[in-house]
Amino acid sequence: MTSDAGSPGDVDHLWAVIPAGGAGTRLWPLSRRTDPKFLHDLTGTGRSLLQATVDRLAPLVEDRVVVVTGEPHRAAVRRQLPALPDDAVVAEPSPRDSMAAIGLAAALLERRDPEAVLGSFAADHVITDPQDFRRVVRRAVGAAREDWLVTIGIEPTGPATGFGYVREGAALAGHEGVHVARAFVEKPPAEVAAAYVASGEYRWNAGMFLVRPSVLLDLLGRWHPHFAVDLRRIAAEPSLLPDLWPGLPRIALDHAVAEPAADAGRVAVVPGAFGWDDVGDFASLAGMLPADRDGLRVLGDATAVRAVDATGLVVPAGGRTVAVVGLDDVVVVDTGDALLVTSTDRAQEVKAVVAALQEEGRGELL
Amino acid sequence: MTSDAGSPGDVDHLWAVIPAGGAGTRLWPLSRRTDPKFLHDLTGTGRSLLQATVDRLAPLVEDRVVVVTGEPHRAAVRRQLPALPDDAVVAEPSPRDSMAAIGLAAALLERRDPEAVLGSFAADHVITDPQDFRRVVRRAVGAAREDWLVTIGIEPTGPATGFGYVREGAALAGHEGVHVARAFVEKPPAEVAAAYVASGEYRWNAGMFLVRPSVLLDLLGRWHPHFAVDLRRIAAEPSLLPDLWPGLPRIALDHAVAEPAADAGRVAVVPGAFGWDDVGDFASLAGMLPADRDGLRVLGDATAVRAVDATGLVVPAGGRTVAVVGLDDVVVVDTGDALLVTSTDRAQEVKAVVAALQEEGRGELL
Repeated sequence: MTSDAGSPGDVDHLWAVIPAGGAGTRLWPLSRRTDPKFLHDLTGTGRSLLQATVDRLAPLVEDRVVVVTGEPHRAAVRRQLPALPDDAVVAEPSPRDSMAAIGLAAALLERRDPEAVLGSFAADHVITDPQDFRRVVRRAVGAAREDWLVTIGIEPTGPATGFGYVREGAALAGHEGVHVARAFVEKPPAEVAAAYVASGEYRWNAGMFLVRPSVLLDLLGRWHPHFAVDLRRIAAEPSLLPDLWPGLPRIALDHAVAEPAADAGRVAVVPGAFGWDDVGDFASLAGMLPADRDGLRVLGDATAVRAVDATGLVVPAGGRTVAVVGLDDVVVVDTGDALLVTSTDRAQEVKAVVAALQEEGRGELL
Repeated sequence: MTSDAGSPGDVDHLWAVIPAGGAGTRLWPLSRRTDPKFLHDLTGTGRSLLQATVDRLAPLVEDRVVVVTGEPHRAAVRRQLPALPDDAVVAEPSPRDSMAAIGLAAALLERRDPEAVLGSFAADHVITDPQDFRRVVRRAVGAAREDWLVTIGIEPTGPATGFGYVREGAALAGHEGVHVARAFVEKPPAEVAAAYVASGEYRWNAGMFLVRPSVLLDLLGRWHPHFAVDLRRIAAEPSLLPDLWPGLPRIALDHAVAEPAADAGRVAVVPGAFGWDDVGDFASLAGMLPADRDGLRVLGDATAVRAVDATGLVVPAGGRTVAVVGLDDVVVVDTGDALLVTSTDRAQEVKAVVAALQEEGRGELL
């Protein structure tokens, strides 16, 4: 773990909540339903995205970690995180999107630690400067303790159309580097994204929130009262989980709480510029890996790759020798039962292949 | 087998000699040393190139076939051609290029059938109009019976730089469609090839020769007397093969006999335009396969391929699902232990990969 020179130790009562879900469809065939993105080492560091997420947070939270994952992944998560306490992994009976996942963790923490501040961080993102990330989180915790729903807004490095944005408002008195959030906005078209970035007022919404559990659940209760009640009932009596869970709405925390709370003036934003990437597709993945002298990037065993005048990304995960000759910006992902060949600029369209396989009933490949 | 409407039956004393050698390096990883090109079905017809070669010749020669192959391939050749007599497969103790292979068959046939005409045809070429091919061969046999070394010259379909050419001279009296050959010329640079094709006098040298065995061996004896003597000694006493074979020169029939014989006015050429292809690389292979409506060609099980907006060639020979997204003129060849990704216009450079693997001692992949 990176040391935080000049920083204090862990943050009292800060709990990391890590929703570990999502199949990572655009990273097929590397990421599968049964072996999703967060379980993979996508950075060549020897640590999975989930492990790196926990490593990054550990100096802030020690072992105050709650990973919320699907029942099918519980065992794999435990294997990857053997040092965590047994109750650190909460299994959802079925996927119910981020509000249910983070809301359940909030309801559990509300009972467990009345002074808790919950920080939610996806299990499958990459951050290149963890020390700066932690500095920003510390800043956010201060505002969260004063009952703000605090989001970390990523300084855009370009006019991305694949992320939602959060618009920054006035500075929050008494909290250096913290602003009121005016609104969350959906993924914009290109020209709108360019205007957002040019204005200097917009940050990417990376889905990172810091909030007191009671504040989160009370906000949820304003717009979805039954949802908040059911989450608190489950926390009070865990045996109700199998009965109540299937009835919870499938909705993202952003829509259920963050957007209306911003409109109600309850959201604060802390800008961060610590090298964030959601590893959304193979182009994004390629961008994070070092290139060889010809410009080719390899995730995995580079000795399995023979390249002649080729740039792009090769993932030799199928145990085969992979030869690439005379192609620029190619993406080759080889696995035991499926092979993908595309280009970095078409990498998003891998979704279409997954959709076709799904439609044809080839679930064993998904 | 295709019927030859309006043609007579088989050609008395015509023997097909089929040299089956060469690793097909530019078709790696499909073609391997241990499983070379001629053993593969590269046309999706269910017949290997070798089998298709024999099928194509059968109406002319019935079972008068001699396949000359390397000792390591003898069993595979016999398995693919179970209907041939046992002595139809001659195994070379080691590779000694085409003069030794065809010369050995000539020496054997010289003793076996004094009236024989030998027609040599590579085991790994494709011909799209076998009936027209056979019409041309019948024409060539007539000149061969009069002691010409007859080559079939392919009408160029473009200024190819990958083949040698044969230059046509005066018509041969009494033989419709047969000309004296003025000279063989080596693979030309592009501008020379264009001039050859524009002149109308040049044909591609496809390595197809028809000749009486004694004529071939006597011509060989003019320029390589020991070579001819040794071949005839082996034919007279086959137990000498292991001793004499390693001492035979490694030389192509073209250089050893055809070129000097053309200079000596002993070669005739019969033009042919029956859709010939040497399947020299994956671009050539792609050109022979039907495209789907999007322009993608698949050799093998098309249901294993999921393509989105892709053209080129996919060979799914590794038992995996192969997805190709947003690439034009791509070449993807998937096998059990090696994968090649390139483009049709760089397909020739596969040689560089094979050379690198060789140098690194990865012989198991070659």
